[in-house]
Amino acid sequence: MTKIAIIGLGEMGASIAAVLSQNANHEVTGVDSDTKAVDFALKTGIITKKASNIEQIASQMDVIILATPVNIISQLIVQLSHLRLKERVIITDTGSTKREIMALAEKLLTPQNITFIGGHAMAGTHKSGVYAADIKLYHHVTYFLMPSTISTSEPLIDLFKPLGANFKAMSVDEHDDLMAMISDVPHIVAFSLVNAATNRLGPANMFGQYVAGGFKDTTRIAASDPELWTDALLSNSAAVLASQKQLIVELEKFNTAILANDRSKLMAMITDAKASRETLLDR
Amino acid sequence: MTKIAIIGLGEMGASIAAVLSQNANHEVTGVDSDTKAVDFALKTGIITKKASNIEQIASQMDVIILATPVNIISQLIVQLSHLRLKERVIITDTGSTKREIMALAEKLLTPQNITFIGGHAMAGTHKSGVYAADIKLYHHVTYFLMPSTISTSEPLIDLFKPLGANFKAMSVDEHDDLMAMISDVPHIVAFSLVNAATNRLGPANMFGQYVAGGFKDTTRIAASDPELWTDALLSNSAAVLASQKQLIVELEKFNTAILANDRSKLMAMITDAKASRETLLDR
Repeated sequence: MTKIAIIGLGEMGASIAAVLSQNANHEVTGVDSDTKAVDFALKTGIITKKASNIEQIASQMDVIILATPVNIISQLIVQLSHLRLKERVIITDTGSTKREIMALAEKLLTPQNITFIGGHAMAGTHKSGVYAADIKLYHHVTYFLMPSTISTSEPLIDLFKPLGANFKAMSVDEHDDLMAMISDVPHIVAFSLVNAATNRLGPANMFGQYVAGGFKDTTRIAASDPELWTDALLSNSAAVLASQKQLIVELEKFNTAILANDRSKLMAMITDAKASRETLLDR
Repeated sequence: MTKIAIIGLGEMGASIAAVLSQNANHEVTGVDSDTKAVDFALKTGIITKKASNIEQIASQMDVIILATPVNIISQLIVQLSHLRLKERVIITDTGSTKREIMALAEKLLTPQNITFIGGHAMAGTHKSGVYAADIKLYHHVTYFLMPSTISTSEPLIDLFKPLGANFKAMSVDEHDDLMAMISDVPHIVAFSLVNAATNRLGPANMFGQYVAGGFKDTTRIAASDPELWTDALLSNSAAVLASQKQLIVELEKFNTAILANDRSKLMAMITDAKASRETLLDR
């Protein structure tokens, strides 16, 4: 029997729990401050046991999955570092930014020889909470793994195999640079484009009737959750600022070419962008 | 019998022709350098007559619709200014940028007391050519009209009523500023974001497997036609550069807030963008 604790039964954690609890050799204990969520998860078989806090159960666990918001993950790592854990316990998390979490794990868990493998799946929908649990949430999704200096990804890949994700081990720096460019900066761009439009044209109801699909596509993610994205941008600030700098360089290249009426330069830049974009498959 | 000439039987022109030729009191003559396109339009009833060039027919026309690419529209205006036209002829065009076209019309047609009403519909699909003709292409679409100083929009609105578009008279400056912000700059943003990503992360096939819907949405229009967008950006350069400046100001505000770890400023900017974006209805 493998004893697994999942702390945080939101969409991400509950979906992992729902898959792992399908294995009769797993005992999956759920912990969440929302007792209704825990009871729902127990009733529907998403988890097989419940506990009211991590201290009660930590010492018996073989695997501990931290699936709370990023700032709580850090608190949980501190808490776990003070508890007596099984010698071969595996701890992992689901936070979307990894630099702080990995630094904390190296500082507090590595000296105690505790295995920590940071995780981040490119999954998640606009839904949230335990009711969004979906055993197919991770199917064919990229799932980044960042083992600590004394750990390897393999034990977690074995355990998580039924999720159906594409696991990819990566360094924290690579991961954070990648996220900055393909996720954080696109969000800033969408926010900034909407704010530039309202500053220049007036409230959105003044120009909204004229916008076509292009503006709507480009700004769709501007409707994302403000608290979540404030946290995301601040927790990955160095990589975000570097990627922003690169973006502004590219924008200025367009300005320079337009100002110089440089048709061939514009054609070349747009042709490059088109060729790259066309390699990305749309949904 | 109202005699109407449509020069350029691409998607935009052929769709107008298809609607206008449904009226038995209209004689719709099509002109296009692509003789196959003209023959197809005649065979399918999109047009009721054909002509090989504008000189042959211009003097008999009540309405002349210029539906070619923007640079050809300018040449046609020059050509028309040298021909003898009906005293009450109405000339209109379908070009997406209007400053140069309107300036040329004011210079060459207004002194001859010829009515010119610039037009630009927010219509068009990824398809092109006469085979894309669709009598519903303009349904519920915003159709901007810019009458010259001696003209009014009404006669054209009466004629074009069966298109089912939402007509909106606007000054050239308003139109070009609007297009810069809601169409031109979003394209530059999409091109630049793709180019920044490839410069920072390597070729798109190196990171393409990791990108999620947000990056795809934000960069979808980066796959647009290079020649068309080079023309669009250059023909609206002043307004584009002003809107780009506004965008970069907004991007820099994010950089400043991130660098200062200013959580409340970030929350406020993202909340503003979210509220504005949510007023735009998605398809």
